[in-house]
Amino acid sequence: MTADAVTGFLEEVFPEMNRAGRIFTIDTIEPGRAIVRARTDATHLRPGGTVSGPTLFSLADFAAYVVILGHIGPQALAVTTNLNINFLTRAGPGELVARCRILKLGKRLVVTDCDITADGSDDLIAQASATYSIPPAR
Amino acid sequence: MTADAVTGFLEEVFPEMNRAGRIFTIDTIEPGRAIVRARTDATHLRPGGTVSGPTLFSLADFAAYVVILGHIGPQALAVTTNLNINFLTRAGPGELVARCRILKLGKRLVVTDCDITADGSDDLIAQASATYSIPPAR
Amino acid sequence: MTADAVTGFLEEVFPEMNRAGRIFTIDTIEPGRAIVRARTDATHLRPGGTVSGPTLFSLADFAAYVVILGHIGPQALAVTTNLNINFLTRAGPGELVARCRILKLGKRLVVTDCDITADGSDDLIAQASATYSIPPAR
Amino acid sequence: MTADAVTGFLEEVFPEMNRAGRIFTIDTIEPGRAIVRARTDATHLRPGGTVSGPTLFSLADFAAYVVILGHIGPQALAVTTNLNINFLTRAGPGELVARCRILKLGKRLVVTDCDITADGSDDLIAQASATYSIPPAR
Repeated sequence: MTADAVTGFLEEVFPEMNRAGRIFTIDTIEPGRAIVRARTDATHLRPGGTVSGPTLFSLADFAAYVVILGHIGPQALAVTTNLNINFLTRAGPGELVARCRILKLGKRLVVTDCDITADGSDDLIAQASATYSIPPAR
Repeated sequence: MTADAVTGFLEEVFPEMNRAGRIFTIDTIEPGRAIVRARTDATHLRPGGTVSGPTLFSLADFAAYVVILGHIGPQALAVTTNLNINFLTRAGPGELVARCRILKLGKRLVVTDCDITADGSDDLIAQASATYSIPPAR
Repeated sequence: MTADAVTGFLEEVFPEMNRAGRIFTIDTIEPGRAIVRARTDATHLRPGGTVSGPTLFSLADFAAYVVILGHIGPQALAVTTNLNINFLTRAGPGELVARCRILKLGKRLVVTDCDITADGSDDLIAQASATYSIPPAR
Repeated sequence: MTADAVTGFLEEVFPEMNRAGRIFTIDTIEPGRAIVRARTDATHLRPGGTVSGPTLFSLADFAAYVVILGHIGPQALAVTTNLNINFLTRAGPGELVARCRILKLGKRLVVTDCDITADGSDDLIAQASATYSIPPAR
């Protein structure tokens, strides 16, 4: 699936995802990879003006889902079974970029790895590996 | 710190935490343990009516923070460095209960483990281990 | 399967497991739980006389396998897909005890959690959660 | 430190590392990265001829240590505090290659990420992120 196709699918099956305004956008989906952006605002910040852990988790989890959909097609029932996230440096407000790659594309499990940076920076804010379970084909 | 003292401290330093209504409440803090509740509503649900991953992550991360504060005192600058979460079964709407224990209470790192269930059930919805870094005393 | 049955099965299918002398022994298998011991010797120590990370990993992984076999029966082809281990305190030589519980017993995935202590102590040396993939029944 | 300097340091402080013959060798250490090899033999195999989990864990943990030493200098007391490993595909006997990068180089914590493949292949066998704690300078 292309970035546009995944975006359309998600808007259809997860309309509440961007309920409070469009936060996540899909930049690109390429073989084995995807880039997803998150536009953070004040609601995503902790005291001191740093992006909250749940915001980074949500981006990592969503970006993993995007790269998986891009490779297995529309599959609303794929679910995260494990996510391990390292918080590396504090992030200020602004746009975050998640670069995801597929580590394993199995029939039952897909494993992904994501790096999160601020837009325009190479400094890592977080790194996450996620496993999704794919329901059996009917 | 007692449950009430931690609640008071959090309301002071993280007033935005329960901005959209009080979601998290602290049940008990005991030596090495704490119990935290989350009252989920429609905003925490995914299609199909299951509690979202970010909601479970937030509860696990918050409950870890609570049990740590209960043992090291008011320390706004403790930060999560790693969180590993296993999503075990889908959760419906309702009240979630996180039971956290401290695995290691070091000067620099505190490691915690949380089980999340629905209120009144023993079936695990998620399990998470989290590491917090404690800033050096000045 | 009982502790004896799992031990017999493992000796049959993994004879090399205790090649260098019997290191691991199964204490008990109960509903949802198992206790496994490891007898460490000089070959498992790092400089300074502390038990090595690979030794603790091996015990956690083996104990997870034991509790799973105890619940799903002889299944040589179950494989670890993810293991997250927290090293909490240094361990000296001696007997280690891994207490494992099943967090989720699914048809395709089984998730376990293990605490490792020294024999006779409550201080945690390591904690690990592991996911095993169970091959489809033929 | 260069690959040769790290090798020399490790032979001095961890002589037992390659007790049973030299298993691990350091290929290269570059800014932010290192490549480490493991020569597996029959003692590292599980039934069916696949490389065991503990062997892959050991390589990931050792390679993380190598890339860290290469950047912070000889520091025998750095210890692994967390290691999360995803086992992606079964590996046969032969040479394994771990490509490690530093995700965060802090004063107290260093976080690394390693991909493990068979020599000459791009297919991932395992991926691991590891956190090391660096003792305070005296």
